[in-house]
Amino acid sequence: MRIGKTEYRTVWWEKDQLCLINQPLLPHIFEILRISTYQEAARAISEMTVRGAPAIGATAAFAMALALFQGEDPKIAAQVLGQTRPTAQDLFYGINRVLQAMERGEDALEVAQSLADEYVQASRTMGLLGASLMAQGCRVSTHCNAGWLATVDWGTALAPVYRAQHQGKNPFVWVDETRPRCQGSRLSAYELLNQGIDHRIIADNAMAYYMSRGEIDMVMVGADRIALNGDVANKIGTYSSALAAHAAGVPFYVLAPMTTMDPQCASGEDIPIEHRSEEEVSTMFGWCDSTGRMEKVQIAPPNSPTANPAFDITPAELITAIITERGIVAPSRMEALL
Amino acid sequence: MRIGKTEYRTVWWEKDQLCLINQPLLPHIFEILRISTYQEAARAISEMTVRGAPAIGATAAFAMALALFQGEDPKIAAQVLGQTRPTAQDLFYGINRVLQAMERGEDALEVAQSLADEYVQASRTMGLLGASLMAQGCRVSTHCNAGWLATVDWGTALAPVYRAQHQGKNPFVWVDETRPRCQGSRLSAYELLNQGIDHRIIADNAMAYYMSRGEIDMVMVGADRIALNGDVANKIGTYSSALAAHAAGVPFYVLAPMTTMDPQCASGEDIPIEHRSEEEVSTMFGWCDSTGRMEKVQIAPPNSPTANPAFDITPAELITAIITERGIVAPSRMEALL
Repeated sequence: MRIGKTEYRTVWWEKDQLCLINQPLLPHIFEILRISTYQEAARAISEMTVRGAPAIGATAAFAMALALFQGEDPKIAAQVLGQTRPTAQDLFYGINRVLQAMERGEDALEVAQSLADEYVQASRTMGLLGASLMAQGCRVSTHCNAGWLATVDWGTALAPVYRAQHQGKNPFVWVDETRPRCQGSRLSAYELLNQGIDHRIIADNAMAYYMSRGEIDMVMVGADRIALNGDVANKIGTYSSALAAHAAGVPFYVLAPMTTMDPQCASGEDIPIEHRSEEEVSTMFGWCDSTGRMEKVQIAPPNSPTANPAFDITPAELITAIITERGIVAPSRMEALL
Repeated sequence: MRIGKTEYRTVWWEKDQLCLINQPLLPHIFEILRISTYQEAARAISEMTVRGAPAIGATAAFAMALALFQGEDPKIAAQVLGQTRPTAQDLFYGINRVLQAMERGEDALEVAQSLADEYVQASRTMGLLGASLMAQGCRVSTHCNAGWLATVDWGTALAPVYRAQHQGKNPFVWVDETRPRCQGSRLSAYELLNQGIDHRIIADNAMAYYMSRGEIDMVMVGADRIALNGDVANKIGTYSSALAAHAAGVPFYVLAPMTTMDPQCASGEDIPIEHRSEEEVSTMFGWCDSTGRMEKVQIAPPNSPTANPAFDITPAELITAIITERGIVAPSRMEALL
């Protein structure tokens, strides 16, 4: 997507380096990180410098190419990278796709680049499919960031919004801030502001309120892993959003490339849920006017324990349809699509 | 409740002044504010220096007494105080109770003091009633702060937890942080830590996750206004919590003194919902180690608009029972209780 006069992808290869947009500094500071080792890439994934299932998949694929250039054992690199985020299926897809190609003697970098390009193409297709469901002035609710910063370009859940904007439909987006990391208020809002799309950020708690008042026409969210029965793991809070949509009779769409499906998971119960640091809940990071830099502030009593599951499971019965590059299908039809 | 060696109420009268605990500075700084004018009291209510329906009611009642000592027109004072927070029914109850007593020639301060004492007594009773529902090791989920800081003492939703602790039941509390103002992670956690009660703070998004995993035995929340049909206005996010409890078959209890009932509201649709400043959503206030003081950090892009409803309506059908000082009753029985 374009920022100012420059066209960016979220993850790209340039001069033998993996380039990433440093996402925790957004929306306040725009910085590009240049990474030369797979170990640095692993740290960028685990610390969420890069996040979003497809963006993680592409990063991991390029990181495998870095391991090759470093002369490191690709199997060890695959293992290290595979320990960074347990829930995102695309992480494993990206690693394994390059690892298997390397074992067949193919060029790792070329395979990683193909995967990145396929993600962009899948996002374009999902954008077209999703936009076909949106009427003029459609008010979409979204959770976390599933825009271009979460993918390689365009996005999953936000791709239809960008497409609808191009089609002159003037969409409006309710942006859940998405505690604890606030990918909604930091990243989705940043994207929407850049693209000139009308939006409002709300506390996650307020989503059900606007839903019950008839101010939301549909929900569009991404996915970190999809089970064979159509259960979906996505950013913590997605399940609450689905419950509110269900209570109000509002359609709930999940958008993800086919690579997010996990043939090993029969249902959501099989999907491992990542638990992150307690500090993400007890503190907040942001721009401080009084010091002129990014600061972290403590919200909770330092001695109060917190719990921080990063994902939840939305059961298939709360999902109207799953939109992939293969089409718009009922969750129960996902297994047949594989 | 006791902090260190001192027994405190949240709101009290001392040497011709209204005393309040400065809640936005908690849990990091404990400061008592001494207030001499009803205008200062009005500001303390609107800026949430004091918050929680019964605490607001008691503050407003004492503020009417201040107006009398200032020699101000009590009707004007009532009007100014009545414009501070539109949703909390106890605000209007406290103002009108003292105003009407003054019109009958009664002592304003005595009436305000009686109301504060009645709140404490009601909280004690609710605590006993609520604790009777709790088994050994009961895991309670709560939203916002409805502990002693939200009332005059003991609390509404947390009163049963404190009582159960005294009864040796070792309760556990899941504390929703309660964005945007984080009364859960700032105030409920502070209270629970002080009382030695086992708890964990979670992002509001994580409540439904723990609910779906069977890790919550009951929900206990307070109320800002209760309609005749049993619909309840409470802190934004309460409705999401009720939806999650309903989906999991977990009992959902609302605790409030009878003064929180509004005989003018037939249903939740009649309850006015307060909308607060956009900044509460786009920023976060907290203790900054690097500067050694309270700082505000900007989370969202400064140009992204936010929406900030402070309350939502939980429909009666999602509420298992409402607990007042008069007993534990089905929401549909509340009107008969008046």
